[in-house]
Amino acid sequence: MRYVYAFAEGSKDDRDLLGGKGANLAEMTSLGLPVPPGFTITTEACRAFRTLGQSPDGLDSEVRDHLGRLEGAMGRRLGDASAPLLISVRSGAKFSMPGMMETVLNIGLNDETVLAGSAGSNDERFAWDSYRRLLQMFGRTVLDVPGQRFDIVLDKAKADAGAARDIDLTPDQLRDVVARYKDVILESTGHAFPQDPFDQLDAAVLAVFRSWDGDRAKLYRRQEGIPDDLGTAVNVMAMVFGNRGEDSGTGVAFTRDPASGAVGAYGDYLPNAQGEDVVSGIRNTMSLDDLAQRHPQQHADLLANMNRLETHYRDLCDIEFTIEQGRLWMLQTRVGKRTPEAAFRIAIQLVDEGLIDMDEALRRVSGAQLARLMFPQVDPAEAGRPWVTGVPASPGAAVGNAVFDSKRAAVRAAAGERVVLVRRETNPEDLGGMIAAQGILTSRGGKTSHAAVVARGMGKPCVVGAESLVVDEEARIAIGPDGVTLKEGDPISLDGIAGAVFRGEVAVVPSPVVSSLDSIEDLRHADDPVVAAVARLMKHADDVRRLGVRANADTGEDAARARRMGASGVGLARTEHMFLGDRKQLVVRLVLAKTDAERAIVYEELLPLQRRDFTDLLAEMDGLPVTVRLLDPPLHEFLPDLTELSVKVALEDIRGNRDSEHHQLLEAVRVMHEANPMMGLRGVRLGLVLPGLYGLQVRAMAEATADRIAAGGSPLPEIMVPLVAARTELALVRDEAERVIASVAEERGVDLEISIGTMIELPRAAIRAADLAQVAEFFSFGSNDLTQTTWGFSRDDVEGAFFTTYLNANIFSVSPFETIDADGVGAFIRMAVEAGRAVRPSISLGVCGEHGGDPASIHMFHDWGLDYVSCSPFRVPIARLEAGRAAIAADASDTR
Amino acid sequence: MRYVYAFAEGSKDDRDLLGGKGANLAEMTSLGLPVPPGFTITTEACRAFRTLGQSPDGLDSEVRDHLGRLEGAMGRRLGDASAPLLISVRSGAKFSMPGMMETVLNIGLNDETVLAGSAGSNDERFAWDSYRRLLQMFGRTVLDVPGQRFDIVLDKAKADAGAARDIDLTPDQLRDVVARYKDVILESTGHAFPQDPFDQLDAAVLAVFRSWDGDRAKLYRRQEGIPDDLGTAVNVMAMVFGNRGEDSGTGVAFTRDPASGAVGAYGDYLPNAQGEDVVSGIRNTMSLDDLAQRHPQQHADLLANMNRLETHYRDLCDIEFTIEQGRLWMLQTRVGKRTPEAAFRIAIQLVDEGLIDMDEALRRVSGAQLARLMFPQVDPAEAGRPWVTGVPASPGAAVGNAVFDSKRAAVRAAAGERVVLVRRETNPEDLGGMIAAQGILTSRGGKTSHAAVVARGMGKPCVVGAESLVVDEEARIAIGPDGVTLKEGDPISLDGIAGAVFRGEVAVVPSPVVSSLDSIEDLRHADDPVVAAVARLMKHADDVRRLGVRANADTGEDAARARRMGASGVGLARTEHMFLGDRKQLVVRLVLAKTDAERAIVYEELLPLQRRDFTDLLAEMDGLPVTVRLLDPPLHEFLPDLTELSVKVALEDIRGNRDSEHHQLLEAVRVMHEANPMMGLRGVRLGLVLPGLYGLQVRAMAEATADRIAAGGSPLPEIMVPLVAARTELALVRDEAERVIASVAEERGVDLEISIGTMIELPRAAIRAADLAQVAEFFSFGSNDLTQTTWGFSRDDVEGAFFTTYLNANIFSVSPFETIDADGVGAFIRMAVEAGRAVRPSISLGVCGEHGGDPASIHMFHDWGLDYVSCSPFRVPIARLEAGRAAIAADASDTR
Repeated sequence: MRYVYAFAEGSKDDRDLLGGKGANLAEMTSLGLPVPPGFTITTEACRAFRTLGQSPDGLDSEVRDHLGRLEGAMGRRLGDASAPLLISVRSGAKFSMPGMMETVLNIGLNDETVLAGSAGSNDERFAWDSYRRLLQMFGRTVLDVPGQRFDIVLDKAKADAGAARDIDLTPDQLRDVVARYKDVILESTGHAFPQDPFDQLDAAVLAVFRSWDGDRAKLYRRQEGIPDDLGTAVNVMAMVFGNRGEDSGTGVAFTRDPASGAVGAYGDYLPNAQGEDVVSGIRNTMSLDDLAQRHPQQHADLLANMNRLETHYRDLCDIEFTIEQGRLWMLQTRVGKRTPEAAFRIAIQLVDEGLIDMDEALRRVSGAQLARLMFPQVDPAEAGRPWVTGVPASPGAAVGNAVFDSKRAAVRAAAGERVVLVRRETNPEDLGGMIAAQGILTSRGGKTSHAAVVARGMGKPCVVGAESLVVDEEARIAIGPDGVTLKEGDPISLDGIAGAVFRGEVAVVPSPVVSSLDSIEDLRHADDPVVAAVARLMKHADDVRRLGVRANADTGEDAARARRMGASGVGLARTEHMFLGDRKQLVVRLVLAKTDAERAIVYEELLPLQRRDFTDLLAEMDGLPVTVRLLDPPLHEFLPDLTELSVKVALEDIRGNRDSEHHQLLEAVRVMHEANPMMGLRGVRLGLVLPGLYGLQVRAMAEATADRIAAGGSPLPEIMVPLVAARTELALVRDEAERVIASVAEERGVDLEISIGTMIELPRAAIRAADLAQVAEFFSFGSNDLTQTTWGFSRDDVEGAFFTTYLNANIFSVSPFETIDADGVGAFIRMAVEAGRAVRPSISLGVCGEHGGDPASIHMFHDWGLDYVSCSPFRVPIARLEAGRAAIAADASDTR
Repeated sequence: MRYVYAFAEGSKDDRDLLGGKGANLAEMTSLGLPVPPGFTITTEACRAFRTLGQSPDGLDSEVRDHLGRLEGAMGRRLGDASAPLLISVRSGAKFSMPGMMETVLNIGLNDETVLAGSAGSNDERFAWDSYRRLLQMFGRTVLDVPGQRFDIVLDKAKADAGAARDIDLTPDQLRDVVARYKDVILESTGHAFPQDPFDQLDAAVLAVFRSWDGDRAKLYRRQEGIPDDLGTAVNVMAMVFGNRGEDSGTGVAFTRDPASGAVGAYGDYLPNAQGEDVVSGIRNTMSLDDLAQRHPQQHADLLANMNRLETHYRDLCDIEFTIEQGRLWMLQTRVGKRTPEAAFRIAIQLVDEGLIDMDEALRRVSGAQLARLMFPQVDPAEAGRPWVTGVPASPGAAVGNAVFDSKRAAVRAAAGERVVLVRRETNPEDLGGMIAAQGILTSRGGKTSHAAVVARGMGKPCVVGAESLVVDEEARIAIGPDGVTLKEGDPISLDGIAGAVFRGEVAVVPSPVVSSLDSIEDLRHADDPVVAAVARLMKHADDVRRLGVRANADTGEDAARARRMGASGVGLARTEHMFLGDRKQLVVRLVLAKTDAERAIVYEELLPLQRRDFTDLLAEMDGLPVTVRLLDPPLHEFLPDLTELSVKVALEDIRGNRDSEHHQLLEAVRVMHEANPMMGLRGVRLGLVLPGLYGLQVRAMAEATADRIAAGGSPLPEIMVPLVAARTELALVRDEAERVIASVAEERGVDLEISIGTMIELPRAAIRAADLAQVAEFFSFGSNDLTQTTWGFSRDDVEGAFFTTYLNANIFSVSPFETIDADGVGAFIRMAVEAGRAVRPSISLGVCGEHGGDPASIHMFHDWGLDYVSCSPFRVPIARLEAGRAAIAADASDTR
C-alpha cells in the first residue's frame, strides 16, 4: 500500500484517492502551471488511520521520503536555520467540504528559523507575522486552543500600538505577539509549542485526519449525503507568501461570473496578505482590473492560466493564487460553485464555445436548480434577518397579511387583499384558505406535512415547522421568539427557499423562467440569457428523455396549467377533490343513506357534477391520456372530526339541546370511525362495499368521453383502481366498469375505448403483480402509500415523531417520502415492473406518488424501466429536465 | 374424451373423475360385493356442461351405450312394458356435499310400465307407490315444483283414507295419488310428466349437473372451502327395491359407532321402505340386532361385507344397503364422518388391529378435533334454542352472571361469583375483567377482535359480534331481539363452539382431555379410551414433528401453563402487558417526563418490577428458551382516549374547573395522538427515540438472568426487537443491548449468553432479510403485523367493515388473519427464510403471530422450513399435533 503521491504523479481523475484538491493540484502541475511543489497523503491513509486509531505503518517513512524530494526541489530544508523550508498542510476530501476541515500554513517556523534570511525590517515584519500565523493556526486547529484567546492578544497588541491593521504592527510588536501566543499555547495545553518542524508536520497531518470525524464535518456530510467512510487526503506544499510586501499578494478568481453567469473572469485580490485574509473579509479587496493596473504581467499570466484551466476542465473553474514578490503561483483550482442562473447560462455558453456538447450541458444543470429559477424569490439583500425560521417546504416568495383561519383568508382574498395563511398545521378543511393565500406558514409539520405537500402541488411558497412561533388560532395571533406578537392583518413575508419568515413586506424578485415554459420553442433565442439557456436545455432534455412526464391534476384548470408546463397527460386525477366544497353535503347524505334507493338519489345528483369534472379534464388534455383514480379515501374523511364533534355534542347536551343534527351525525361518525384510517375502509374496498359508487364514477367518465367525442375531441381516458391487493378485487371492479362502459357506449352509439388499470401501492400488489397484470392494462405506482406500508409507518404520524432521530442515526440519509427508498420500496417496484411486463408486454408503467417529481427518484425510475412519472404541474418542467438527465447519465448514482 | 365408466371399470382412487360415490361403487363392485350394476357419468362431463351450457358432444351416445349394457346385464329394458328396467340417478361429487345435490329414483316408470309384472295386490301397491315416488322426486328436483304441493296431495289422500302411514294406502288410493301428482306437474310446469323413460333419464342427468351451481351447493362449498370448478359426477344404477314387501327393506350402517368410537357395527334398518324413508325419520327404525332376528343370513352377509370394507378401506365406513325380497344389495359406502372423540379412538383402534400405522392414525385426526375435545362443552340436548347467536370466537362453555364492566367483573369474581363479561367490544382496559370472567360476550367485532384474540389466548369461551344484542354499558343492560332485557347479575351461558348465547344456566360437559395433557406419558393406558387415544397420538406427533412449539406467555403463570401443555419455550413474551395495571401510572409519568433525569427516576422504579417479571418467566421455563419482545405499542395506548378526555375537559371547563389534572394530561395526549397509531411511533422506533427505555428492559432481563444463574437455574433468554425495517435500527439496539449485558455481566461476575434477534413483521424487513440476518441471531415472524402491512389494512378496522363482502366475493376463502395468506404474506416469509439462512446458516426461525396456532398455517410453516411456531398456551397441544401431521403429510394441501 502506497500512501503518498507527489503532485507530478496524479491527475484530476484521482479524486477518490487524492481528494479533490490534491487531484486538481496534480492536474495543474502536469499542465505546467506554476504550482509550488508538494505531495498528497491519500484518503487511503486517512481510512487506515480511522480503522487503526493511529498512522498506518510506512506512512511516516513515505512522508519523509517525499519531504526530502521537496527539500531538494526547493533547495531548502525543513528546520534549517539558514534556508528553512516552510510548508502548508491542507485537508482535501473527494467532495468539497468548505470550512469543515483544517489548514495549517507556515510549518517549519520556530524560534531558530524565524529570522533566517531576513534582511531589513520588512523581512523581519514578514518573518514574525508568519510565525504568529503559524502559532495561531496550529494552536487552534491542531491543539484545540480556543481561537479567541489568540484574537484577544492580537487585538490588545493593535490597541496598545494604536495600529488599525495587522500590517501596521512593527516587527518588535509582532515578536511580542509571538511570545504571548506561545504563552497562550503553554497555558491552554500544558505543553510548549513544538519547536521541531517534523513534529509540527506530523501533528498537523494527524489533526487533518481527526478533523474528518469532527462534529462540523459529520453534520455537513449528513446534510450533503456524503458517505462517512471516504476519509480525507492531506496536501503538503511548499509555502509561497503573499504577505511578503507590497509586491506580493493573494487572491481568488472565477473564470466566469458565478452569480450571473456572465462571460469574463471575476475575482478579488488583496496585496501583502495570506489566503485567509481574503476569505475572512478583514480588509477590502481589489478587483482583477485593479490587479491588471498593479501587476500587468502577472495579471496576463493569471488570465492565461485561467483560460487554460477552463478549456482543460471544460467548465467554470475557481482558483486561488498568490503573487510572491512578483512571481505568480497557482495554489488551488476546482470546478466552481454557481447560482442556478449561472449554471444554465454557463452550460449553454460552453456549448456555444464548442467546449462541451448538449448532453454534457444537460449534465451540468439540475432540476433543483431549475426549481429555484421558477419561483419568485425574496431579495436577500433587501430582506435582512428573518424573524423566525422553519423548514423550507415549497420554494418561492410570498408577501401578504397574516390570517389565522381559512374562511377569513378566502373572504379577505376575495376582497382583493393579499394574505398569508398562518396555522399550527393544515388539514383538508384548509384547502380554500390555501388556494386564497399567497403562501402558507405553519408552526408544526415537516416537508411532507399536509401544508407542504398541498402547497408544493399548488406551486405556492410554504414554510412549515416554524417551531419557535406560538400560533394561537383562537386569539388570531402568533408570538415570535422575540416576544413580538403578529396580529391578524399584519404584513408578513415568506421565503420558501430559505425557510425564512419576515415581518413586514420584503422585496420580491419574480421569475422570468416560468412564463417562458409554455412556449419554449420560441424562446431559445430570448433576450434574457437565462430564459434562452433554460429553453435550449429543456428542448434537449425533451429530445433525449425516454420517461414520459405527466401531471397530477384534479381540475381542468390544473390540467391546463400542466399542459403549459409540458405535461404529456394527466397521470393522476384524484376524484376525492371532487367531493369537497359544496359537494361535501352529498357525501354526508351518502354516508347517512341506509338503502340502495337513498344512495341512488345521491348518485343521481353527483353524476352530472362528476361528468363535468371529467369533461373539463379531457377537454384540457385533448389527445393526451387522462388517468382518473376512483375514490380512494375513507368516507369519514369527509365528515367532521370525532373528537371535535364529541365535545360539541357533550356541550349541547349540557345546554339541554339533546336532539341537534350533530347528535345524528355523531352516531354516523362513531360508526365510521377507524383506529387507523390509512389501513381501513378505503380504495377498492370502499368501491366493493358501497354498491354503486364506482359504477357512478365510471359512468360519469364514460359519458364525459362520449360527450368529448361528440364535440369532436380525442379523449384518452384511463380508469385507475386504488389500493388493490388481490386480483379478484380488480377483476370485480373491472367487470362492473366494462358493463357500465358498454352500456353507455350503446346508449350513446359510440365506441368507447377506456383502459383500466391499477395502482400498485401495497406490498401484496407488488408481489402479486403477475396476477394483477392479467386484468390491468397499466400499473401506476403509488409510491407514497407503498412507502408507508413497506416501512409500516404513516407519513402523517412519523415525521415529527422520529424522522430527526432516524436521519441523525443514519437509518435514512434522506426521508423515504422525499426520495424513493431504493433498497426496500424500490425492490418492490422493480419486482412489479418485471412481473408486469412478463405477463403483459404492452403494459404501461408509471409512478404517481410525490416521488414522481423528485430528481433523485426520477433517475431511479428511468433506470428501472418505467414509462412515465406523474407529478404536480409545477414540477413538470423539473421532471422533464431530470428525465432528460437520467437518459444521458452514465449511471444512476450520478445525481449528487 | 370419454364421459362414462361402468362401475366395473373404476376404483376408489378415481374420486376426481367419478366423484366419491361413483369411485366407491366401483371399488365395491371390483371387491365382488353385491352392487346393482350401473355406470358413472364423469365430473368432466359436468365441467363440460358448465362451460358449454349444454351436454357435451358424445355424452348421449355413451350413455345409450352403457344403458344398453346395463339392460343386457339385468335382462330388462328401459320402457319395456313387460320387463321394464328401472334406474336411479344420483349426484356424487369428489367431496361429500350432503343434502346439497339431487337424486331421482325409479326412472323408467310410466303409465305403461307401472304395472308390468304385477301379480297380486301387493305388487300393485308397490308399483303405484314406486311411480308416485318417481313423480314426486322428478317433479321436485328436475322440474322445480315446490315439494309441498306433493305433500298436500299425499296428506289429503291419507286423511281421506284414514291411513296413518303411506304404506297403509291401497293400490287404488295410490293410483289416485299418482293421477293427482301428474296434475300437479302439469299445472306447475305447463308440461305433462315425460312418459318416455329416456327423456326422464336425460332430464335427471342435466338436473344433477345444474344442481352443482344451485345456491345451497355454492353456499356449502364456500363454507367448506371446496373449489367451484370441480363439478359433480352422476351415478346411474339399476333400481333395487326395499319397498317390495315385508321381505324387503333398507338401512344405513357404520362399521363402528361414529359418535363414541366404540367398536362394533352400528346401524338402522327399516322394513318395506326406500332409502329416503330412513333418513327422513318418518318411521321408527330398527337396530341391526333386530335385523339379525328378522333376516339372520342377510345380517351375517351385511356384517361380512362391512368387515370386508373396513379392512379394505382401513377406516370407519358408512354404508347404505337394501334387501329386496330377501336379497342383500350394497348401494353405497364411504369413509364415515365421526365426532372428535370417535376420530381419536378409532384411529388408535385401527392401529391396534394392525390395519394402519401410527403415521396414518395421526393423519386421521386434526387439531380442530383436538380443540373441540379440550373445551368444556354446552350439552346441546339440555340447552334448547339459543337466545341470541354471534361469531364463535373461542370454544368452550361458560356459565355465569352477566356483568357489563370489567371492574365490577373483577370485584364480583373476587367475591367468588362466576361472571360472564358482556361488552359492546373490549379493549386492553378490560383485561382484568376478562381474566376474572368465565367467558366473554360482545355485540361487535369478529374472530380476530380484541375480545376474540385475548380470550383465545386465555383459553376462555368467547362469543363476539352478537349483533342482535343491544348492549347499553351505561345502563348495565343488554336487550335481545325478543325484547327481553338482561340485567347485571342475571345468569347467562355461552357456547363458544356454536357461537350461541343462552339465558339462564345450561348444563356443561367438562373435557377430560385437558387435565391429561401435562402427563401424557402416564396416560397412554388411561381408563378413558379417548384420553388414552389422544395421549398416544400426541406422543407420536411429538416423535415425528420437526417444528418446535413454543408458547406466547407474558407471565410466570402463563409460562407454567404453557409448559404443562407441552411448550418447549416461550416464543413471545409481550412486555407491554407488564406496563398495565398499577404500573400504568409509571407510564403516564414517563410520558410527562421532560428530561432524561426525570425519565431515569421512572426507570429506576420500573427496573425491579420488570426484573421480577423476567425472573418468573425464566424460572418457569428453566432450561428452555424465553423470547422477550422489547416494548412495542405506542405509549399513548397507555394513556386515556383523546375523545373521552377532550369531552371530560370541555365539561370541566364549563363548570369552571379550568385547571384539573385532566388538562395537563390532555395536552400530553394531544401531542402524542396519532392518526394511525398502528403505523406510528412504536416498536424499535420508540426504543430509538425514547432514551433509556430499551436499555432498562435489557438490564432487567440481564439481571434476571444473573439471578437465575445464581439460584442454580439454566436460563435461556432471548431479546427480540419489534417492528424493525432496516438493519441500522437493529444494529443500534443491539449495540446498546450488548453494552448493557456486558456491564451487568461484569457487575455480577457471571457469563451472560443472551441472544438478540428481530421480528420480521414489515414487508421491508422481509425483503431486506439478508441485511438483518447479519445482526440478528433469530427471526420471529410477526404474522399479524406482516399481514396488516402486506395487505395495507388493520385488523381492528376491517373485519366488520368489509371482510364479509370479501369472503362472499371470494377475494379470500378465509380471513388472512386466521390462516396465513400463502401467496402474499407467505411469499415474504419464504423470501426471508431463504435470505436469512443464506447469510447465517445457524439462524433460528419462528412465528409468533396468531397464525402460529392455526392448523392450516402450521402445515405451511413446516413446508417453508421454519424451526418453530409460538402460540397461546391453550393452543400448544393443537400445534404439536398439527406439527406432527405436517411432518408426515404427503403434501401441504392435505389439510381439509
